[in-house]
Amino acid sequence: MDLRPLDPQSESPLYRQLYEQVADQIRTGRLVAGERLPATRELAGQLGLNRTTVSAAYEILETEGLITGQVGRGSFVTRGQAARTGGIDWDGVLERHELPPATPAPSGDRDVIRFVVSRPSDALFPLDDFRASCAAVLGRADLADILQLGSPSGYEPLRRYLLDDARHQGLAAAGDDLIITNGCQQSLDLIGRVLLRPGDSVVVEDPVYTGLKNLLAGMGAQLIGIPVGADGMDLAHMERSLRRERPRFLVVTSNFQNPTGTTLPAGARRALLEAAHNAGFPVIENDAYGELRYHGQPAPSLKQLDQRNGTVLLRSFSKVSFPGLRVGWALGPKPLIERLRHAKEASDLHTDQLSQAVLLEFVESGRLEAHHKRVLQAGAERLAAALSACREFLPQGRWTEPEGGMNLWVRLPKPLDAAELLPHAQREGVAYVPGRYFEISRREPGALRLSFAGLTPAEIRRGIEILGRVVRSARESVLETVEPTQAMV
Amino acid sequence: MDLRPLDPQSESPLYRQLYEQVADQIRTGRLVAGERLPATRELAGQLGLNRTTVSAAYEILETEGLITGQVGRGSFVTRGQAARTGGIDWDGVLERHELPPATPAPSGDRDVIRFVVSRPSDALFPLDDFRASCAAVLGRADLADILQLGSPSGYEPLRRYLLDDARHQGLAAAGDDLIITNGCQQSLDLIGRVLLRPGDSVVVEDPVYTGLKNLLAGMGAQLIGIPVGADGMDLAHMERSLRRERPRFLVVTSNFQNPTGTTLPAGARRALLEAAHNAGFPVIENDAYGELRYHGQPAPSLKQLDQRNGTVLLRSFSKVSFPGLRVGWALGPKPLIERLRHAKEASDLHTDQLSQAVLLEFVESGRLEAHHKRVLQAGAERLAAALSACREFLPQGRWTEPEGGMNLWVRLPKPLDAAELLPHAQREGVAYVPGRYFEISRREPGALRLSFAGLTPAEIRRGIEILGRVVRSARESVLETVEPTQAMV
Repeated sequence: MDLRPLDPQSESPLYRQLYEQVADQIRTGRLVAGERLPATRELAGQLGLNRTTVSAAYEILETEGLITGQVGRGSFVTRGQAARTGGIDWDGVLERHELPPATPAPSGDRDVIRFVVSRPSDALFPLDDFRASCAAVLGRADLADILQLGSPSGYEPLRRYLLDDARHQGLAAAGDDLIITNGCQQSLDLIGRVLLRPGDSVVVEDPVYTGLKNLLAGMGAQLIGIPVGADGMDLAHMERSLRRERPRFLVVTSNFQNPTGTTLPAGARRALLEAAHNAGFPVIENDAYGELRYHGQPAPSLKQLDQRNGTVLLRSFSKVSFPGLRVGWALGPKPLIERLRHAKEASDLHTDQLSQAVLLEFVESGRLEAHHKRVLQAGAERLAAALSACREFLPQGRWTEPEGGMNLWVRLPKPLDAAELLPHAQREGVAYVPGRYFEISRREPGALRLSFAGLTPAEIRRGIEILGRVVRSARESVLETVEPTQAMV
Repeated sequence: MDLRPLDPQSESPLYRQLYEQVADQIRTGRLVAGERLPATRELAGQLGLNRTTVSAAYEILETEGLITGQVGRGSFVTRGQAARTGGIDWDGVLERHELPPATPAPSGDRDVIRFVVSRPSDALFPLDDFRASCAAVLGRADLADILQLGSPSGYEPLRRYLLDDARHQGLAAAGDDLIITNGCQQSLDLIGRVLLRPGDSVVVEDPVYTGLKNLLAGMGAQLIGIPVGADGMDLAHMERSLRRERPRFLVVTSNFQNPTGTTLPAGARRALLEAAHNAGFPVIENDAYGELRYHGQPAPSLKQLDQRNGTVLLRSFSKVSFPGLRVGWALGPKPLIERLRHAKEASDLHTDQLSQAVLLEFVESGRLEAHHKRVLQAGAERLAAALSACREFLPQGRWTEPEGGMNLWVRLPKPLDAAELLPHAQREGVAYVPGRYFEISRREPGALRLSFAGLTPAEIRRGIEILGRVVRSARESVLETVEPTQAMV
């Protein structure tokens, strides 16, 4: 700390002069946060002052929040003053951007059964198999390459594996290529970056996955919502919309859609491709859930059905293995994938390579397949538990009957509002996501999403039982409120 | 395969009718890629046809690329026809977006000494320490939590560690928060997403890191380049620019800037903060290289000097540990970090958790610190080798003299053009990145970047020796071309 000599002749007392010099140095940044001030005794000796003078100066500095004393360690410059000394008006800088509505805050209460997140159960994670896959990667001769800067296209052995597999399954057309991303969410983000300009419109399902809605809205896209029925998107509605709008692209979750759980039948897939082809826009097939079919026959994917190379297929490891490892991919025509690669490089250079290598090992060793079987078994039990509990405890509601995936769409009997009911449900011990978080333009106040895959059959049954009780009691109180009015008519 | 009965009375031969039915089913998607056709014998029996009729039909299908025969397996529907049957015009869909210029393609030749990528040497990676860190994470009781879906803010134990560390270093102001990203590149991307609208201008260094230039240009930003001298950004130039422009923010690499290797002195840091504060825009301090100081005294970071909370600090693990693990962070005022969290969630949900957990273990176990010492030792040797080789072999050039980092900026003697010289240099066995890839508006045809950190001192010396030879011979041929002309005057 460099200090000018104090002036004993000044009208300002010495402690005040000392305080002002130090405060000035802190405010102008010559003394920086975290810096330790000399001990009072030391500084007094250095400046030829009485120690109490130095103590008095330090005391004002501390009162003003410029320094902080720590017992046995001395006094340190703080950052406490930042707010008071002006600076950037962050609220002003950020003001022009609107935030998406927050999804319901997690209740801190551990006793609440949470049908809230569309994710697998971590109790099913095959930890020993995961450890074995890591061990294999850590033992490899090319470990240093995995830890080095990688390619925006992805870790080449995994990329090659996925592309070969897609070819083997008849998913990849001759002119197709594949890029690895941090999961389907990033694939959607990169596609938006490459294809969208503010004001462009995009066709999506209504209701639709919140992450997609927020992403596209954040990019300034106009969302054209196509109502989802028991068999997925209402194609007649879509064709009517296409007479008025020229969307840039369409995003569809062909299997076990989030939030409704519905699947587009094969015929509707062909019709959708035909409509998209005639209108001249690409189809983004977001297939995060396709591998989670618990019963029934799968329909061919849109990518497979599309002979005109207008479809991009998005898949991911996260729903069938470990969501904490962010690895997915996009398969589509080379010119698009090349653009996605540029967008990926600008976005975050490349996807984490350790996880890519571990997941490749997890697949190639057959461990994913074994895990997949257990996940399907568990998923079937959970889905069955959810549907039978709905039948038993929600006799007045309606719900979708998916053959796989993680989500169920429930419509409460009118006039109940799922958002209004939620606080009450949480107090009783069950949480869900009200339908309004997923809606584009179709209002369904009674709808809610139940994400069942992360809960045990017993939890699912108990949760829906509680929900049924909450619904009954809400309906009764609605009837009570309504009856006197009716009696007066 | 459902087929209509063939018509023996038709003018079209039977094999042709059969071919047309199958081709039609493939083109309309009723038969999908990968699907196996019945064996000729089987289909002949089914349709009451001669087997040669079926073979003839299959042969045309194969000639047209609609099916492919595999010995011993049968015939399968292919995707070869996609391009020929029309479809989305991807070039049209993608046309309106311009691509950034590609950086020089890697030469396939292993003998070329490549000063091309600003990354650490993988030969220095402490693989056993990395394995030990992984093992510790794999043995933890909360492993399943790490593998489960995480928070957009980052893996909380790592986030907490980094924030505490930033507080301890006096980097974090009272109202600050921290978000984990996939490295500095993603931090910059998220900041751009939150703060920028097309047409906004941003102040950057000139020359500047290509990844930043491409990112901001791709977002539609106008880049205001401030020339970088031996002491970093030319602040007088910046203040003149600020009289004409109102930038949204400024990005500065305070330490060992990429590409020049220069560092902003403490006084210039204060002046820069003052100028930014007066003009009312935030400063983004991109500090990927700050931990790589091989000698000399560090200046306090802008974040630390800024008492007005107008600075966001970006750091990352990738330059000091393993670039293949994509983990960095942004430290700044809470309202901004909150917005970055939303952008992060829309972008890719969250950063890979396995790598976050492993890096936390790598830090907390003290292994990063030990590795850091070795990296500094090796870096010092490499930097010294680069500077002494420049003195010895490039007597007519000029170069920056950084005290750390990974990059050196070399200016070849006039009138040499580094981009024109590159193919020749590559043939001789050395590669670099010409300055034009980094330029904003200041043309420096003779400039080039040498990224030395990934090469051994011997490679560095040999590479610069080759470069010196290439430069000498190019100058001689320039002089030869010029001299006859002069003789004629």
